[in-house]
Amino acid sequence: MTAVAKQSFAKFLKCRECGKEHPPVKLAVCENCFAPVDMVYDYDSIQLSPESFTDRPRTIWRYRELLPITDTRSIINLDVGYTPLTRCGNLGEVLGLKNLYVKNDTVNPTYSFKDRPASVAVSKALEFGDKAVGCASTGNLAGAVAAHAGKAGLPCYVLAPANTEPSKLSQIAAYGAKIIAVNGTYDDANRLAVLASEEFGWNIVNVTSRPYYVEGSKTIAFEVAEQLGWRTPDQIIIPVASGALLCAIHRGFHQLQAVGLIDGVDVKITGAQAAGCSPVAQAFQDKAEAVTPVEKPDTIAKSIAIGDPGDGPYVLQNVRSTNGIVGAVTDNEIVSAIRLLAQHEGIFTEPAGGVTIALLKRLVDEGKIDADEVVVCCVT
Amino acid sequence: MTAVAKQSFAKFLKCRECGKEHPPVKLAVCENCFAPVDMVYDYDSIQLSPESFTDRPRTIWRYRELLPITDTRSIINLDVGYTPLTRCGNLGEVLGLKNLYVKNDTVNPTYSFKDRPASVAVSKALEFGDKAVGCASTGNLAGAVAAHAGKAGLPCYVLAPANTEPSKLSQIAAYGAKIIAVNGTYDDANRLAVLASEEFGWNIVNVTSRPYYVEGSKTIAFEVAEQLGWRTPDQIIIPVASGALLCAIHRGFHQLQAVGLIDGVDVKITGAQAAGCSPVAQAFQDKAEAVTPVEKPDTIAKSIAIGDPGDGPYVLQNVRSTNGIVGAVTDNEIVSAIRLLAQHEGIFTEPAGGVTIALLKRLVDEGKIDADEVVVCCVT
Repeated sequence: MTAVAKQSFAKFLKCRECGKEHPPVKLAVCENCFAPVDMVYDYDSIQLSPESFTDRPRTIWRYRELLPITDTRSIINLDVGYTPLTRCGNLGEVLGLKNLYVKNDTVNPTYSFKDRPASVAVSKALEFGDKAVGCASTGNLAGAVAAHAGKAGLPCYVLAPANTEPSKLSQIAAYGAKIIAVNGTYDDANRLAVLASEEFGWNIVNVTSRPYYVEGSKTIAFEVAEQLGWRTPDQIIIPVASGALLCAIHRGFHQLQAVGLIDGVDVKITGAQAAGCSPVAQAFQDKAEAVTPVEKPDTIAKSIAIGDPGDGPYVLQNVRSTNGIVGAVTDNEIVSAIRLLAQHEGIFTEPAGGVTIALLKRLVDEGKIDADEVVVCCVT
Repeated sequence: MTAVAKQSFAKFLKCRECGKEHPPVKLAVCENCFAPVDMVYDYDSIQLSPESFTDRPRTIWRYRELLPITDTRSIINLDVGYTPLTRCGNLGEVLGLKNLYVKNDTVNPTYSFKDRPASVAVSKALEFGDKAVGCASTGNLAGAVAAHAGKAGLPCYVLAPANTEPSKLSQIAAYGAKIIAVNGTYDDANRLAVLASEEFGWNIVNVTSRPYYVEGSKTIAFEVAEQLGWRTPDQIIIPVASGALLCAIHRGFHQLQAVGLIDGVDVKITGAQAAGCSPVAQAFQDKAEAVTPVEKPDTIAKSIAIGDPGDGPYVLQNVRSTNGIVGAVTDNEIVSAIRLLAQHEGIFTEPAGGVTIALLKRLVDEGKIDADEVVVCCVT
């Protein structure tokens, strides 16, 4: 029984490009320049120490001061987050790494990290008074939003490529969502979702209220830091689809520093893509600042096959500023990596989870990771 | 970093039929009469209070005094257990129940409750010095044993019906297990496993070291009691395959009383089967003491389709002594129940998980559950 807290520390939404500040209302992008906006909190007023967390729930909501919900009674909580940070002694030995960890987000309620942004977005939709929610999705987000919408009692509309895995579609349907199969790629589904949102007034969470939605994902950074004893790892490897997750984790570490929970942020942030859909890795290799979209993604890692990644340029900025890289791995490398992780650590992941382990292995093979480095691989 | 504890409170294995006591060695059944044997602990020497658990790991190993491992360094821990006991307000409202909970074991590392017995059995196999482990399985146990064997560095042999779901077989293969597809039912696979165990010396965990293996499952009882504030629910509904899970949960509640963690055991224990394979429900209806095997199971709930359930007679004893029942539900009821749980609570389960919810709904429809009862449904 959590006490009701009506205070929010969410101050304003700040544009990443022009810097304009907007009040914390329902807003997709900057009204001035259409660039992404990020929530800024009143860090100085947030009183948190490691001891604050002793009796808090083992979910993302233990970090409620840094999440954009005003009334804790709005929270739709399916026990999302606080997933294991598993020390991988066996796999580490195989790879010659002494401090390898996997952040295992496959054991979330709908089996992917997407429960994090979905939990925040659907809770916020209740505060906005929305009558229906939805999303464009490659599969995992749809399951997460549908599950939370069901719990919230809100209708849910999912736009997904028609070639989404049938097992994921049945899961989404079971949660009671209406599925709109789009004869095209994720990017086509996403464009259609924007139109549907305007036409029907649905809160398409990864579009209409994106600045709130993306806040959920940064809780991975909070948990990793807490689970390491309130410090950042030396390197973290993150799958890159739209790029929102990597940017959120980068932001999360810096917010922990802003409220004094960690002394500093000293982490190399590395992004992983599948070679069959690797626009950000290509831009990184080309030393470009802009990302050229991939028209026809072709990889078994369907859940991260986003050809036109909205946060691509910011991923490039974040990895470059932390001395990380963005790398791409082949489908064969992904399959080998899934086996490697399952055999040595008992963690079985879908292709998107194999991407980070595959890139880790490549970096080790190329001698680019020291044996003593504390490395965290996100399996999402 | 858990301190090394070398003490075990496991005293002896006691036969359920003739009462003969055996030392805690590797033993499948009573040497005297071939009936099942249960581990008995030195309850008087175990010093536990609710406060003992404050800083313990959130896994089944928080209850180590009541698990049959001698050296904590043997423990193969994939972060199994301490799964959510989710209060189901929405579904409760639909059904007219004020205190409905789901014990959600789908978020275990290999996605079923079988991680519990597998974790204990593979850890114990290391103490026994076994060179290989294995199991007969309808799918879920194989995944669980394979994952733990991989982490332990032990070869793993799985005997499973050839018609096991392909998605489960790929998961098992990814963990590195050798799969022996049996052209027959689970019961055929089980008989073959006994022979293989004798021929090759494999520790077939659900046969060769069954008394240790089954100890893992009772941790569901420990967790439910702890999560309710150290008390038993009024009723708990448990899927019945071999019947070992139900018997283990019954035993678990009584062990908590024996060590003084709960004041008494006042719980109706109810078993749920799929109509297409319901030998125990049939025996219950017939008021029989013995269970007549089902030759050809035919249900979508494959993971509980055991035609010749070893613990069937003991399930009957346990449910009768607690005023519970064993009921069977149709495949159609199972599908509706999966939807009901997913739509209202965001918990998506395989058919075996739908069985308990379907029986719950039937009992409510028949007016057999009071609105105020604290009811726990196991989704395993």
